[in-house]
Amino acid sequence: MNQVKIFAPATVANVSCGYDAMGFALQALGDEMVFTKTESKGINISKIEGADIPFEADKNVAGVVAQLILTDSNANFGLDIKIYKKFIPGSGLGSSAASASGTAFAVNQLLDNKYSNVELTKFAMQGEMVACGSAIADNVAAAIYGGFILVRNYEPLDIVEIPSPSELMVTVIHPQIEIKTEDARKVVPQNIPVKTAVAQWANVGGLISGLHTNDFDLISRSLVDYIAEPQRKHLIPYFDVVKSAAIKNGALGAGISGSGPSIFALSKNKDVAEKVAEVMDSVYKYAGIAYNIYVSKISAEGAKII
Amino acid sequence: MNQVKIFAPATVANVSCGYDAMGFALQALGDEMVFTKTESKGINISKIEGADIPFEADKNVAGVVAQLILTDSNANFGLDIKIYKKFIPGSGLGSSAASASGTAFAVNQLLDNKYSNVELTKFAMQGEMVACGSAIADNVAAAIYGGFILVRNYEPLDIVEIPSPSELMVTVIHPQIEIKTEDARKVVPQNIPVKTAVAQWANVGGLISGLHTNDFDLISRSLVDYIAEPQRKHLIPYFDVVKSAAIKNGALGAGISGSGPSIFALSKNKDVAEKVAEVMDSVYKYAGIAYNIYVSKISAEGAKII
Repeated sequence: MNQVKIFAPATVANVSCGYDAMGFALQALGDEMVFTKTESKGINISKIEGADIPFEADKNVAGVVAQLILTDSNANFGLDIKIYKKFIPGSGLGSSAASASGTAFAVNQLLDNKYSNVELTKFAMQGEMVACGSAIADNVAAAIYGGFILVRNYEPLDIVEIPSPSELMVTVIHPQIEIKTEDARKVVPQNIPVKTAVAQWANVGGLISGLHTNDFDLISRSLVDYIAEPQRKHLIPYFDVVKSAAIKNGALGAGISGSGPSIFALSKNKDVAEKVAEVMDSVYKYAGIAYNIYVSKISAEGAKII
Repeated sequence: MNQVKIFAPATVANVSCGYDAMGFALQALGDEMVFTKTESKGINISKIEGADIPFEADKNVAGVVAQLILTDSNANFGLDIKIYKKFIPGSGLGSSAASASGTAFAVNQLLDNKYSNVELTKFAMQGEMVACGSAIADNVAAAIYGGFILVRNYEPLDIVEIPSPSELMVTVIHPQIEIKTEDARKVVPQNIPVKTAVAQWANVGGLISGLHTNDFDLISRSLVDYIAEPQRKHLIPYFDVVKSAAIKNGALGAGISGSGPSIFALSKNKDVAEKVAEVMDSVYKYAGIAYNIYVSKISAEGAKII
């Protein structure tokens, strides 16, 4: 194989109670990338569409991840990379994670699947380090494995795939405002009462159990975040209005995607998810805030060849 | 029905990462109680064997719970109660919870199953309030529902039943020392770093997922407690030795049962659980500490008629 064209999904991390531990992949939204082997070693990024990100390979998430894998595998080829961003960085939907994990997946294809998913996740985490200063795993693992994932542990890295109801849908609205990951991190308290932590992990247990058993009521009751959302929601205009409108119109729950500003809502089927999109949409339309909105299945697979 | 004889299981709460949220019931250990309707209203405790607990109904956990239910149901009868304690209070195995939940279950039988399990759990929690000063649900819910349970929420009370592998076994060793619940609570910090909390709920997610999928390796990796065990283990002689001996000999994991001093270890089958019992046993034998030891299936059912 000398060339591969791939799709790398957008992802939702910090899934309510699953702050810093759970994520899932979207089927309907993601980047496209084309990787072509070159005789000369090294990385050349020859095309970037849809985002203002660096062409220099050592400053570009895809370039960094590709170089890491080529070096680790002692590959005898270089790469030409074309990047077609379909959703913009800073949305809270894992833009850098899509680049990082899409690259890890694609280069692994060109290496005849030398690496396991957990190894690809580790490479992709180095891309996250370049993009946002910390090697977090939840977005990249979701983009590589697909579906719902739990980052059970970092050292050693342990990614647990969580099944989810096949009908489960997500509605995501992305208000066109900027929140920097560092700013979003700053407002989350460093210490919390044990009582609050217990309430949070009881909901993590409920959410995971509900996903295993297709228990939509339990999923709904468990989609509560006592840690990040109460602080971060103030960074997102009309968050409470959007969330309560979504839930009143049938969403199982709603929360902040990643560190925002996107807001996600889970619904038990497509009809509800589209109704939820309408009402989320109308909140921002009325408020005069520019936005993008997406309705998607949870992707059963992660990055894939197209 | 005028009389009912019941078995109320011992329970393990604070299951490692599931501190204050998860519990399970033992099949092989529990109290027996006999409840007989009387024409005169009120509660008479006519027999207590195996523990030095009050005969006065308003100071006895069983008496308090029975009276609450009779009053709530406006029953036209009273009760004679005989209590046969098969394991002693202060073990960390839910002695008061067995009395409370056994009573709730039994009186409900005499009332033709008027109440649901969650209602019975609420009554039994009032017994825990009498016994240890707080209306905690993890032991009593495990004793009523059987199997593994998750206390997802208190207000309103939400008990989630978690399936577990049918071969799963527990070994419990109870060193004959006293730890008061209040003392055990005092050593647990009131506030914890968010990072630690995230690591804990990632393990809760892993444990619940492993129980759903019979994934013994995942259960094993997830049986970690960063919150209570590091503090409380110092109250239990040779805790680290007992735990590491259990794990070296095949246990999936081990931890403190409830607030101690009992130590539990989970194993993937009976042979391993008995091997683990031998080595736990030998640690305390060598150290000259009196103890009881039990090997049991996880009980698929809670309190039951015998």
